[in-house]
This record gives sequence, structure tokens and C-alpha cells, in this order.
Amino acid sequence: MTTQVIVLNGGSSSGKSGIARCLQAVLPDPWLTFGCDTFVDALPLALRTASEGSGGIEVAPDGEVTVGPGFRALEAAWIEGIATMARRGARVIVDEVFLGGPASQERWREALGDLGVLWVGVRCDGAVAAGRETARGDRVAGMAASQADAVHRGVLYDLEVDTTHAESLECARAIAARAV
Amino acid sequence: MTTQVIVLNGGSSSGKSGIARCLQAVLPDPWLTFGCDTFVDALPLALRTASEGSGGIEVAPDGEVTVGPGFRALEAAWIEGIATMARRGARVIVDEVFLGGPASQERWREALGDLGVLWVGVRCDGAVAAGRETARGDRVAGMAASQADAVHRGVLYDLEVDTTHAESLECARAIAARAV
Amino acid sequence: MTTQVIVLNGGSSSGKSGIARCLQAVLPDPWLTFGCDTFVDALPLALRTASEGSGGIEVAPDGEVTVGPGFRALEAAWIEGIATMARRGARVIVDEVFLGGPASQERWREALGDLGVLWVGVRCDGAVAAGRETARGDRVAGMAASQADAVHRGVLYDLEVDTTHAESLECARAIAARAV
Amino acid sequence: MTTQVIVLNGGSSSGKSGIARCLQAVLPDPWLTFGCDTFVDALPLALRTASEGSGGIEVAPDGEVTVGPGFRALEAAWIEGIATMARRGARVIVDEVFLGGPASQERWREALGDLGVLWVGVRCDGAVAAGRETARGDRVAGMAASQADAVHRGVLYDLEVDTTHAESLECARAIAARAV
Repeated sequence: MTTQVIVLNGGSSSGKSGIARCLQAVLPDPWLTFGCDTFVDALPLALRTASEGSGGIEVAPDGEVTVGPGFRALEAAWIEGIATMARRGARVIVDEVFLGGPASQERWREALGDLGVLWVGVRCDGAVAAGRETARGDRVAGMAASQADAVHRGVLYDLEVDTTHAESLECARAIAARAV
Repeated sequence: MTTQVIVLNGGSSSGKSGIARCLQAVLPDPWLTFGCDTFVDALPLALRTASEGSGGIEVAPDGEVTVGPGFRALEAAWIEGIATMARRGARVIVDEVFLGGPASQERWREALGDLGVLWVGVRCDGAVAAGRETARGDRVAGMAASQADAVHRGVLYDLEVDTTHAESLECARAIAARAV
Repeated sequence: MTTQVIVLNGGSSSGKSGIARCLQAVLPDPWLTFGCDTFVDALPLALRTASEGSGGIEVAPDGEVTVGPGFRALEAAWIEGIATMARRGARVIVDEVFLGGPASQERWREALGDLGVLWVGVRCDGAVAAGRETARGDRVAGMAASQADAVHRGVLYDLEVDTTHAESLECARAIAARAV
Repeated sequence: MTTQVIVLNGGSSSGKSGIARCLQAVLPDPWLTFGCDTFVDALPLALRTASEGSGGIEVAPDGEVTVGPGFRALEAAWIEGIATMARRGARVIVDEVFLGGPASQERWREALGDLGVLWVGVRCDGAVAAGRETARGDRVAGMAASQADAVHRGVLYDLEVDTTHAESLECARAIAARAV
């Protein structure tokens, strides 16, 4: 089946968006790329920076991120929208953080069901990802380490790449070779 | 009919995105907001900064923007995706520049057909918009003036606001009062 | 005396940086522009997002900003550096928030002492500035209102502009006419 | 001699700013970090996006960057300003691209003369840097490859790091160990 959607799942600072940009450069057709950041930027400020109990995003002092029901309802619509774009002929790279592990994957799988999807795990050693988080200079410390393994637990992939020792472009080439 | 989508159309630097953020703050429910910038950011670099004949975005030396067939094909899928999000229950503010005037509106109207849409024209005097473009300090000079009137020609609205003398929040309140 | 430095003081969302960009466009010579944001971006993350007692920036839940001794020591060096740039022939626009009112102005006055300085107050009605803060969509609500009047109390100006009803470019032209 | 300034020189996408942010995190005292980007952002738009002959920045179609006399005059004042900040007690990391090789270094050396400076070369294999440029998704292609070796030719260092196979944090630790 032709690949219509490439889903990249990995923790914060694992290198997903760099891989997405490289995929756009190496894949023969034009692909769109959307990330969870695209969705979060679209939210009202109140859901983006929610205090406890607001139904939006909550970042614990140790960097753990949880989201509430207000976030989930809008996210479900967002996911369906992305699926429609792919059905209408746009090839789409999705750059995601499966905070809920297999439950998050299931949300995407149901929406994308009939489409040709390539599921890609973007791994990065937690300590290395934490160092890259420091290098970005603008992130809540701890998010990278907290998510490095957790987001992959129980998730099934067609392909896994590991950015610990490989460049984004190298990972993108490996993924592109599978996106037939 | 309940308003499910608010489409803001106006030229560059007319104040659309500020109105969109204010709408998110004043409307009682959570609304998502997406702009043509969201779509452009999702494009491959080759379509975002296209040289003549590439099928992507072209900005003439006087600031006039034209887009090619590669852009249009992906944009059609994007528009359908936004319509799906609204059909799945997300309320959506769309912040757009109808470079093609009524032809651009028609593209959105067909996709949104069955939804409750509030069409809003965001006007701004060309000279004032050009001054705001200068104040942003990062824009190709000329885009604001070139688009100020052109994007409204032949477009039909439920409501028009004018940011020449009114604040974003004030315009947002007028729009919110109509988004029943 | 030739104007070598233009200091713009105003609260958050009062429109200082837009005026600074317009000044660069309307003044005949090339001017550099630096803001308190330039300085804050240069700080280590620990001082930028400090928790209580860290010596860095603290933002209270109501938007009030206070800074500690670690911040002040580096800021003093920063101010001296800007003064040197002007002494070496660069014309400089400084975009500042005098959180300490006259004490803040005194810090700059001492460093700039021998230079030709134009002191400009950038006023904006607190409610209007708060609305513009909402329109930016990424600011801690309350900062604009909290600073609107406080930063001007006891500060002496050569010229005041008010962005409540005037565009950035208009304010810039009034300032440029005085920057001889 | 105590290190008061750390100068990082390397081509575009070699990883300098990531190393600078990591240095801020690992060095015991608070350090400021400024890059050539800080200076470029301070310039008037006309010098930032100059067309041929304007005296500002020119980027050739192959990514080669050259700067004119208007740029150089303001840059000289900027460099003196940074030197003053260090003399006044701020420790400063400078993140630079020596487009002029030894001539660029000489400009900094003269200004910093009496200060304790650690000169650091940030190397990255040209092909790897070009791949990272692609991963950023917003850069003129070719800049990284064009600068990878050229900016180091004839420049003298106290220490060189190579980001081709080493993380920013690792490089920062090696530099910090020398910044006594």
C-alpha cells in the first residue's frame, strides 16, 4: 500500500522535527508536516498554559506533561482533520509525542484506519535527549528524560530509528526508503 | 445556525491574527485558530521559498504574492482537513489572505458548505497596514499595501471590521457578538 | 547635541519595539536597536525563569515582574556595553521597561552620561495595552496593566508619545523629528 | 588568567549556539551569551536583507555570505560594546562566524586585548552540517557547506571541538574544563 502518512513518535528533544524537515527534502513528492506543536499553537492561551484543573496542558515541576479533557476533545477533531488531508491527496508527516503510549497510537490508528501509514519510532537515549534539551536553552528541564522511554512503551512500529548516534538526515533516508 | 467556523480575511498586517487570539479569549468555548501561516509552515522549504516556475510561493519585488499549482493542490487538502475538524466538533477560526479574491472564498465555501460559517472581512487602510508592516521589522515591504484592497474585491461577508482605528479586542468583541 | 542614543521606556505591550523598528526605517542613518528582551535572551535559563530566591526574574501570578541581584549585576555590565557601542559611533535605540522607575533611569543616565540621549516615554492606556497583550496570544496576562503607569512614575522625558490612538510609525516620526 | 570571554567560531549549523546554551548550564557562574544573530537582529531591515551594493548582508545563490562597509562599521562598535561588558564583570560567550577568517579574529582580538579570552574552534564536517541545515528547515541551503572549513582557515585556537560525532553538552564540558 502506498504510504500516505508517516507518523513519527518520540519524546521531547528526540529529533522528530528535524527528521520531518529532512523527509520533506529527500522524499520525491511534496509532503506536509504537522506536529503536536502545530496543534498546541492553535489552542487558546488558557488551554496552552493551564493551571491545575483547567482541562488543558499541565507540566509538572519534573517536566512530566499531562493533558486534560478540554485538550483531548479538540485533539480528536485535529486528528480527524489530518486524516482528511491525507485522504484528499496530501501526503502528511505527523510529528507526535504519544504521552499515553498505546492509547495515543490507538487514537491515530482509528482516524487513519484506511490510509497507508508508516509508523516510526524515534528513539534517543534519555541522557542524550536531556543534553539536547539543555542545548535548546528554552525548554523545561526534565521533559526529555521523562518522555524518552515512556512514549514508546507498548507502541508498535514499522520501523525504528535512533538519533543517539545517527543524524536526522540519515534517519530520514532510512524512513524514506520504506515509504513506498 | 450555530457558528462553527469564523473565517477572517484580510491583507498582510491588517491585524487578523491579533483578532483571532482575542476571539479565543472572549468566546465562551475553546476555539482553535489556524492561519495561512500554519499551512505555509507545513510546506517543504522548496515550496515555501520557491523560485520562478517551482509551483510554490512567489513574492515579486513589489511584495505581490502569487502561488503555483503545487501549492494549490496541497492547500485544497488542507482546507478539507480544517472543514473536518469543524465537523468533528472543534470550533475553528481561520485567518486567511484571499489572494484570489472571490475564487479563494469559493474554495473555502465549497469545503465548509454544510457548516455554520461567519465570514468576516478584516479591513485596514493600506497606508496604516504598511506602517504596521514596517513596525514588525521582518516583512517584505509592499505586501501590506499590495493586499489591502485587493483581497476584499468581490468577497462577500457577514460582517466587516476595520482595524485602522479599532483595537483587535474591540473587533473581536464585535465578531463574537455575531458568532452565536 | 547630536542624538546618539534614543531610550524608549514603556510598559509591556505599549508598542516600544514597533516604534524602534519604525525609527530604524525613518531615521536617515542606520541605527541599532536593543531591547530588554535582547538582554534577557542572553541570560542563562536559570536566571530567565527563576523560581523565588534565585536572583533572576520573577513573575508574580498578577503579572508583576521583579528581578534579583544576579540579574542586576549582569544588567549593569550590559548597560555599560551599550554605552560603549554609542561612544564608538553606533547610534543606538534602547527599548526598555523601567521596572524601578527613576532608579532604572538613573542606571542608564550614569552609563550614558556624556552621550547625546533622547529620553522618550512610550505611554499606552492600561486597558488598551492589556488588549494588545491578549492579541499577542503568548503573554502572561496582567503584565501590561501592571506596568502601564508604574514604569513612568518619576521618570523624566524629553518627549512622550502615546500609542493608545497613534500608530507606531506616527510616533516614530515625532521622535525622529527630535533626534537631531 | 581568568577566562572572561569565550569566543566560539564555527560555520552555520556547526552547533555553536547549542554549545553556548550548554556552557551557560555547566559553568558555575552566570554567563551571558551573544551571537552574530543578536547583532544582525539589531540591524535595520535595510542592512539585514540588503540587495547588492547596499552595504549590508548579501547572500549569494550558493549560500556564500558577504557583508558591506555599513555592516562593518556597526559591527566594530558592537564588538567594543561586548568587550566593555566583560570588563565590567559580565562573563560573556560569543558565538561567531569568522567569515573573514584571521581578519575577523583580529577584529575581536584587538577589542578584547586585555581580557582573558578562550578561543574555541567549533568544527563540523561540511556534509554533516549541511544535513543539520536541512533539518532546521528554514535556512538557505549551502551556507553550512560553504562555511564549514572557510571560517577556520588561518584562525588560531586554544581549543577545538568537533560536533560531527560529539554532542553539544560534551563539547561544552570540554570547553568549561579549560575556562578557568
